Amino acid sequence: MAFPLTSPAPPGGKWKIAIIGSGNWGSAIARLIGINVQAKPQLFDPEVKMWVFEEQFKGRSLVQQFNESHENVKYLPGIKIPHCVVAEADLVRSVQGANALVFVTPHAFVPGVCKQLRGKIDPNCRALSLVKGVEVSAEHISIFAQVIEEQLGIPCGALSGANIADEVARDAFGETTIACKDQQEGQRWYEAFHTPTFHVQITDDVVGVSLAGALKNIVAIAAGACDGLGWGNNAKAAIMRIGLLEMRKFALEFFDTARPETFVYSSAGIADLITSCLGGRNRKCGEAFVKTGKSFDVLEREMLNGQKLQGVQTAKEVHEFLKARGRIDSYPLFHAVYNIAYEGLPPAKLTAHL
Amino acid sequence: MAFPLTSPAPPGGKWKIAIIGSGNWGSAIARLIGINVQAKPQLFDPEVKMWVFEEQFKGRSLVQQFNESHENVKYLPGIKIPHCVVAEADLVRSVQGANALVFVTPHAFVPGVCKQLRGKIDPNCRALSLVKGVEVSAEHISIFAQVIEEQLGIPCGALSGANIADEVARDAFGETTIACKDQQEGQRWYEAFHTPTFHVQITDDVVGVSLAGALKNIVAIAAGACDGLGWGNNAKAAIMRIGLLEMRKFALEFFDTARPETFVYSSAGIADLITSCLGGRNRKCGEAFVKTGKSFDVLEREMLNGQKLQGVQTAKEVHEFLKARGRIDSYPLFHAVYNIAYEGLPPAKLTAHL
Repeated sequence: MAFPLTSPAPPGGKWKIAIIGSGNWGSAIARLIGINVQAKPQLFDPEVKMWVFEEQFKGRSLVQQFNESHENVKYLPGIKIPHCVVAEADLVRSVQGANALVFVTPHAFVPGVCKQLRGKIDPNCRALSLVKGVEVSAEHISIFAQVIEEQLGIPCGALSGANIADEVARDAFGETTIACKDQQEGQRWYEAFHTPTFHVQITDDVVGVSLAGALKNIVAIAAGACDGLGWGNNAKAAIMRIGLLEMRKFALEFFDTARPETFVYSSAGIADLITSCLGGRNRKCGEAFVKTGKSFDVLEREMLNGQKLQGVQTAKEVHEFLKARGRIDSYPLFHAVYNIAYEGLPPAKLTAHL
Repeated sequence: MAFPLTSPAPPGGKWKIAIIGSGNWGSAIARLIGINVQAKPQLFDPEVKMWVFEEQFKGRSLVQQFNESHENVKYLPGIKIPHCVVAEADLVRSVQGANALVFVTPHAFVPGVCKQLRGKIDPNCRALSLVKGVEVSAEHISIFAQVIEEQLGIPCGALSGANIADEVARDAFGETTIACKDQQEGQRWYEAFHTPTFHVQITDDVVGVSLAGALKNIVAIAAGACDGLGWGNNAKAAIMRIGLLEMRKFALEFFDTARPETFVYSSAGIADLITSCLGGRNRKCGEAFVKTGKSFDVLEREMLNGQKLQGVQTAKEVHEFLKARGRIDSYPLFHAVYNIAYEGLPPAKLTAHL
């Protein structure tokens, strides 16, 4: 008896991936997924649909230009994406037949996207959230993986790490962390993202990975302020160290399943914090805030070209959450960033209560 | 009955501190110690002797200039040091009457200094090592706190952290870690160093604090090479993360008493690593190595003005130590730095085996 010419189907069957979102980061990971899907036909369906929010760019449809040039000419120009990734303007059509959904939209899109998808997806599919940030109110904090799980009734993991999209797109060495409660599914997501220059670690700490990616932006604002004050590298390293400890403490205090290792050992924790405090828009705006005296609202408009300044927003949400619990004093760095951004505390007082 | 006008002597009596060494870092900490000794007469003798290696600077004795101007005009110009700190050219005389010795010489001086001091010190005194580096051979690794303990028969702790001397000297915010096996003594060292802008943490992990301060230099060479290669911040953050894990692993594998928290939570661990990978001479030479193609020997001579490039030396010593134990493969980043510095591995292969 001859061996079959095709490999046996892997446990759980082949995955057909759909990518929901197509900005700078979405386009960079679409390239990785495209490469891996082509290289591993035994694991993945050969076509990947990507939902591209339709807009005109230089007078023509972005979707059409993507499918002609295999390039996101607006958000990731100059980078070719494998032909197996096909842009689709219709959200519901983009997920047809898919059993693995990658969410990589701006966070404000998530509720609307979920609403449109409800009842339209394969009930056996799974999802991975690359959405940045958390939903915080005085009452509770939700990570987007939870929001997606609740809205769609499917399991959802998270991917986060020290991942500047342009560097990933040009195959500079980097790492990321994928969190998935099911180990076998985590392994398959690994196969979809890992490349020789983009190393994936797997964990089951979905909450820790998601929180780290949101809370680090508060610390990056402080690191930027430190740069603006000209305090030097001792101070900046101290702020990053203290910030990492507050991130970890916050996760452990309010989430039963979060694990300390995620913060201190993973790319989603310490490495993403480092990247954000070296470069990144929160750091940049923190520095400009000190140097120019302009408000963060003004700086966001002037410097971020329509992107959101997440650090000050997260600082505010976390402040309200902690205040409602009488726990502000245990997070002096988070508190200082809030006070500088919203209450007129002079930036030079950043470390006064550490 | 009136309260006495003077406070009762603290447990263990007052400390009379002597500082052995007077370079850039020694002078910066002499200033902190001088400030604290003056402010806390109940804890410390009001005079601090500092052993200054006698040399001529601009035609005059450095010791004499220090005692006239209260400034180390050669190694920390422009910074005033409290009058209670008195320079002394004679090593043995500098420790007379002292019961707390702060070692802050270049590491090569330690054996000679200990030899001269043997039998000349108060047998009840204690020491703190601010000496950078470790003594490594294929047979064993010694931290300088251990060397001092063995040579002088007195207990010795260690101080290390994200501490660029010039930033500490101008009171920019920073932190450090003091490791001391005796908690009460650790508390007194805290009182000698801590200021409103220089925050001290105390631990009992003398080995971990000392190793972190030495091993981080290997990682800083790698971070510099990454800068030289133009790989960007994802790669640099990944190298720092992986380097931190190898530092921690090395300490835990070869030293029973080392603790993982020292690496991931303390100023001596993660924060010093960050500072060294952002600035610092090892990072700078790692970058220049890639950009110029010159050897590290040449770069050390050209760029460091007589200072030693510790990262490549430590990489070599650690390599020999690991090789003797058949453990090289478990430390791929350390190994890559060794291979790049000594075996002609192209720097672009830095991450090939991570």
